[in-house]
Amino acid sequence: MTAYRTHTCGQLTAADAGAEVRLSGWVHRVRDHGGMLFIDLRDHYGITQIIADSESPAFATLEKLRAETVVQIDGKVRLRDASLVNPKLPTGEIEVYATAATVLGPSDDLPLPVFGDQDYPEETRLAYRFLDLRRQSLHDNIMLRARVIKWLRDSMWDAGFTEFQTPIITASSPEGARDFLVPSRLHPGKFYALPQAPQQFKQLIMVAGFDRYFQIAPCFRDEDPRADRSPTDFYQLDVEMSFVEQKDVFAAVQPVIQGLFEEFGGGRRVDSDWPLIAYADSLRKYGTDKPDLRNPIEMQDVSDHFRGSGFGIFAKLLEQSGTEVRAIPAPTGGSRKFADRMNAFAQQQGLPGMGYIIWRKAEDGSTEAAGPIAKALGAEPTEAIRVQLGLGEGDAAFFLGGKPSDFEAVAGRARTEIGRELGLIDENQFKFAWIVDFPMYERGDDGKIDFSHNPFSMPQGGMEALAGDPLKVLAYQYDLACNGYELISGGIRNHTPEVMFKAFELAGYDKSEVEKRFGGMVKAFRYGAPPHGGCAAGIDRIVMLLADESNIREVIMFPMNQRAEDVMMGAPSEPTNEQMRDLRLRAVPKE
Amino acid sequence: MTAYRTHTCGQLTAADAGAEVRLSGWVHRVRDHGGMLFIDLRDHYGITQIIADSESPAFATLEKLRAETVVQIDGKVRLRDASLVNPKLPTGEIEVYATAATVLGPSDDLPLPVFGDQDYPEETRLAYRFLDLRRQSLHDNIMLRARVIKWLRDSMWDAGFTEFQTPIITASSPEGARDFLVPSRLHPGKFYALPQAPQQFKQLIMVAGFDRYFQIAPCFRDEDPRADRSPTDFYQLDVEMSFVEQKDVFAAVQPVIQGLFEEFGGGRRVDSDWPLIAYADSLRKYGTDKPDLRNPIEMQDVSDHFRGSGFGIFAKLLEQSGTEVRAIPAPTGGSRKFADRMNAFAQQQGLPGMGYIIWRKAEDGSTEAAGPIAKALGAEPTEAIRVQLGLGEGDAAFFLGGKPSDFEAVAGRARTEIGRELGLIDENQFKFAWIVDFPMYERGDDGKIDFSHNPFSMPQGGMEALAGDPLKVLAYQYDLACNGYELISGGIRNHTPEVMFKAFELAGYDKSEVEKRFGGMVKAFRYGAPPHGGCAAGIDRIVMLLADESNIREVIMFPMNQRAEDVMMGAPSEPTNEQMRDLRLRAVPKE
Repeated sequence: MTAYRTHTCGQLTAADAGAEVRLSGWVHRVRDHGGMLFIDLRDHYGITQIIADSESPAFATLEKLRAETVVQIDGKVRLRDASLVNPKLPTGEIEVYATAATVLGPSDDLPLPVFGDQDYPEETRLAYRFLDLRRQSLHDNIMLRARVIKWLRDSMWDAGFTEFQTPIITASSPEGARDFLVPSRLHPGKFYALPQAPQQFKQLIMVAGFDRYFQIAPCFRDEDPRADRSPTDFYQLDVEMSFVEQKDVFAAVQPVIQGLFEEFGGGRRVDSDWPLIAYADSLRKYGTDKPDLRNPIEMQDVSDHFRGSGFGIFAKLLEQSGTEVRAIPAPTGGSRKFADRMNAFAQQQGLPGMGYIIWRKAEDGSTEAAGPIAKALGAEPTEAIRVQLGLGEGDAAFFLGGKPSDFEAVAGRARTEIGRELGLIDENQFKFAWIVDFPMYERGDDGKIDFSHNPFSMPQGGMEALAGDPLKVLAYQYDLACNGYELISGGIRNHTPEVMFKAFELAGYDKSEVEKRFGGMVKAFRYGAPPHGGCAAGIDRIVMLLADESNIREVIMFPMNQRAEDVMMGAPSEPTNEQMRDLRLRAVPKE
Repeated sequence: MTAYRTHTCGQLTAADAGAEVRLSGWVHRVRDHGGMLFIDLRDHYGITQIIADSESPAFATLEKLRAETVVQIDGKVRLRDASLVNPKLPTGEIEVYATAATVLGPSDDLPLPVFGDQDYPEETRLAYRFLDLRRQSLHDNIMLRARVIKWLRDSMWDAGFTEFQTPIITASSPEGARDFLVPSRLHPGKFYALPQAPQQFKQLIMVAGFDRYFQIAPCFRDEDPRADRSPTDFYQLDVEMSFVEQKDVFAAVQPVIQGLFEEFGGGRRVDSDWPLIAYADSLRKYGTDKPDLRNPIEMQDVSDHFRGSGFGIFAKLLEQSGTEVRAIPAPTGGSRKFADRMNAFAQQQGLPGMGYIIWRKAEDGSTEAAGPIAKALGAEPTEAIRVQLGLGEGDAAFFLGGKPSDFEAVAGRARTEIGRELGLIDENQFKFAWIVDFPMYERGDDGKIDFSHNPFSMPQGGMEALAGDPLKVLAYQYDLACNGYELISGGIRNHTPEVMFKAFELAGYDKSEVEKRFGGMVKAFRYGAPPHGGCAAGIDRIVMLLADESNIREVIMFPMNQRAEDVMMGAPSEPTNEQMRDLRLRAVPKE
C-alpha cells in the first residue's frame, strides 16, 4: 500500500499465511512470556498480534517498546496454534513473526492509558483527547457519528433535497439564546454574530426559489453550562421545503429518521407508527411535550370523581377555577411499600405528597381499594376511578391536584419513575410521536404575552385567529419526541408580511422593531414568497441515543469542557495587544 | 404531491395531455396576446406555460399578476399546436389551460427583474440576493456548487476516508492570516478564534489513530478586501492521511479531482497526465508556482549565449552573481508589431522593456534573425539561441535579464500574454501539475529567515538537512496547479517534536514560543505520532473554474460584499449595550 505498510492491522487472515508483510501501528499491549514477546499492534482498522523471540533481529527494539509507540514491523504471517486462535478478532487466526522493527513515533509515559477500561477524570481525558480518542468506545462513537451524518446526507439527497451552506459569519438574529459575537476589524465598533440556527437563511433559500433544502448545519449559542449540552455549538440536520403543509414535512422526514434508527439502532426495535399528539394532550397524558412512549402509562383527568366528594382536599381544590385532579395509573404497583416510595419521590420533587389508591385482594377474595383517598372518597367513586383507569387487583393509582401547570412537570417525572420502578418500560426500542398544535403564545411571569416557541411559525387560522384571544391561537409548530427526548423541532412558516407583523404585534413588537430585527426576511416576503416549512433535527442528541450515551462529550471529537474551555488547545485565551488594537476594543476590568 | 401542487413546473409532458393538474410557482413572464394570456410559471424544476382566455374563471386573477408573484394554478394539460412547440423546454410540448388561480405570495414592483439578461450593480444584487438567486445562471451555479460538494464527499467516502467535524469555536492558531476573534462571556477578557484552517485538528485526528480524514471545512480569515476572494470565510476539501509519503497523497487525490472535473467540466478535456514539477523548475519555466500548462511556452535559461557577448547590457548584467538571462519563446510571434506590443506590455509591468529576436524570411529565402539583440549578439550565438529554443521562421523570442526574483513574476505574466495573444492556449481543457520541492525557508525583506509556506511540513532530509543552510532546505510541501490557479496545497507533516523544534528554531521561534503557540499539537507528538500528511483543496476556486466564473460571489449563495458586509441581513451591526456588558468590552473611539 505505502512504504509504511503492505496491509492494515485489521486485514490479515489465514489466507495470508506465509506472506512477508509490513505493518505500522500503535503498540496496544506488550506481554513478555519468558523471552517470547507478544505485541498487539493497533491501527484504525484493527489489531494484529506480533510475536518475536530472542532470535528475531527485531527483538532488541521490540522489548524496549513503550505502550502507544508507533512502530513499523516487517515480518512473516504465520497461522496461530489452534489453541491460540482468537475468534473475536478478524485477524485472530494469524500472527506476524517480526523480523525488523522501526520506531516511527516514540511515546513518553502515558498520562492516560489506551489499553484497559479504567475510568479517568474528564479533565484529564479532555487534556489528552488524542489519547482518549484512541480508546475503542470513543473511537467507535466518533465513527458512528460520522456514519450517521453520511447516512443522513445520502438519504436527504435521495429524497430530492439539496445541501447548501449558509453563512457562519453573519448578522445577529435574536432567537431566544445568546449570540456569539465576532468583532469586525474593517468596521470598528460593529460586530458579526455566529448563527444560532440558519432559520432566516433557509427561509430566504425558499424565497429564492430552491425547493427542498437541507444542511448539516453548525449552530452557535452562548449557553450557560449544562451537563448534557455543548456550551458553544451543536449540529443540526436543518430542513426546509416549499409548497408544503405540516403533513408533507412529516412524510418527508419520517422515512429518513426511521431508516436511520433502523440502520444504526443496534437491533433495537424501531416503531413505524408515529402518532400525532396535540401539545395539550401530551401534557395531560404524559406531563411533558417530549413523552417517552415506551412507558405505557397515560395519565387521566379524574376530577369529576372528586368534585364535591368526601376527599376534602381535592373537593375544595376543585372549587377554584383552572384546577384539575389527575390520576397516574400504576399497573402492578399495588403495594403499600411502592406507594410510600412514590409519595416520597413526590416530596423530593417539592410537592406535599402524592395520594394513592391501592387495589388488593380482600379477605373474602374480592378486590378492595385501600388507602386514605379510597376511604374518604367512598366505594362508588373509587370503583368508578378503577373502571376509568382500567385497573384491577394488584394495581395502584396516584393522584395530583391543582393547576395543571403547577404539577404537570412533576406528574410527568412521576409517570417515568413509576414506569421504571415497575419495569413497564421496554428499553429495547425507539418510539416516536409528532407533538403538534403548540400554542403560538404564552403569558410570561411578567404577565406579558410572548411567543411560546418559534416566532416565524404560521398561526393556525391565520389573520382571523390573531384577532381573537392570543393564548388560544395554535401554531403550525411541531416537535418529534423519541424515548423522552425532543429530536426535531419545526414549523410551517409565516410567509406573508401582514400576518407576520400582526403576529409580532401581539407579542409586543411593533412593525419597526420587526423590520429592524428581521429586515432581510420581511423584505424578501414582499417579492413573492412561497408557502414553506421545515424542521431541524439535533444530530448530537440523535447520536447520543444511538450510541446509548448520556454525556454529549462522548459523541464529539473535540468537545469543550463544561466551562466552555478547550483545555487541549488553550481556548479561550488572552488576545494580543495588536489584536485588540486592530479591533479597537478594550476589556473592561471586573468590578 | 401536496395540497399546493400535483406536479412541479418541470414535469408535465405530452403524456399528461388531458390531465387535470395543479401547479404552483413564480410568475416568470406574462404576455397578453389580445385577450389570451400566456404565463410562464417557474419553479426550481422548470417552466410550464399557462394559458387563459377571457372565458377562464382564472382570467381576472391572472391578468393582474405582477412578475414574481407566487401563484397556484388549477388547469388542464393540453398539447400545444405543432407550430408552438418549444423543443428547448422539457415541458415544451404542452401548456396548461388555467381554470382557477390563487395568489399564494404577492409581489411588489421588482427592484431587480428575474426575467431577462440585464446587468445590475452588484450592491443591488446583494441587497436583493433572494431575487438574484432566482435568475437562471446564478441558480445553476449554486446547484453546481452543491453537486460538486456532494460528489467530493461521495468520492472521499468511496476512497476510504471518513468525514469528521473539527471545532469552529476554538483557539487562535497563527497561520499567516488574521484570526476572527470571538469574545468569551464566561471568561471575560479572553477570546476564542475561528479556525483559519483545521490544520492542527486534522493532525491531531491522525495522532488519535483515525487513518484517513476529510472534511468539507469552513475556514475563516480576516482578510483585506480583494475582488476574487471572500473577505470572511471559504470552504476547503480538507484531507489528511496516516502512514503515507507524498506520492501516496497524490495517488489518493488525483482520481477524486480528475473525476470531478470530468463529471462537471462541461465536456472540457481533462488531462490525466499530472506531471511533478519542482518549484524551482516551475519558476524558471513558467515564472510562477501555479503555471497554466495549457500554454505550451516554456522559458529557458540562455545566459551562456550572452555571457561576454556583444550585447553589452546582458553581458554586463551577467557579471553580477545571481543573475541570469531568460528567453520566452514565442512561436508564430515573429513580427515587429507583435514584438513592440510585448515590449510595451513589459513597460506597463514596470520593466524598462523586453528585448527580442525575430526570425523572418530573408530576401534570399533563407531564415534571418532581426532586431537589436540579434545585431549586437552576432550570427553564431543568435543561431545557437534559435536552436536551443527550437524556433524557426516566423517565430520570436523575448529576453529578460537580472536577478530571477526581480523579473520572474513579470516573465510569467509575459508568457501568459504571449500565449494568449498568439492563440497558443487551448482554453477548452484542464491541465494539472503537482508543484513539489518547495523551499522550507525564505529570507524576508528584513533579512530574517522565515518559513516560506506551511511551518508544519517535514523538511526533506530531516534533522540532518536542518543542520545546513536553511535556504537550501526543501520541504515535503506541494501544490496542485490547474490552468494557472492553485487548487490544492499540502504537505507531509513534521511529526517528531525534535525536528519540529529545530525547524522552528531556524525560523526564529524558540522552544517556549512553539510550546505556547502549538502546545496541543506538540504535546500530542510526544505520545506516539504516526507519519502523516495531506492537503486542502479550495472549493470556491474549483467551482469558479467549473462554472467559468471569475467572481467568487457568483458561486456562493449568500456572499459578503467586498467591504465584508452582508447588506441584506445587515451585518456587521452595532451590538447592544447589554451584549457589550455581558462580554465586558468597550469600543475604543476612532482617533
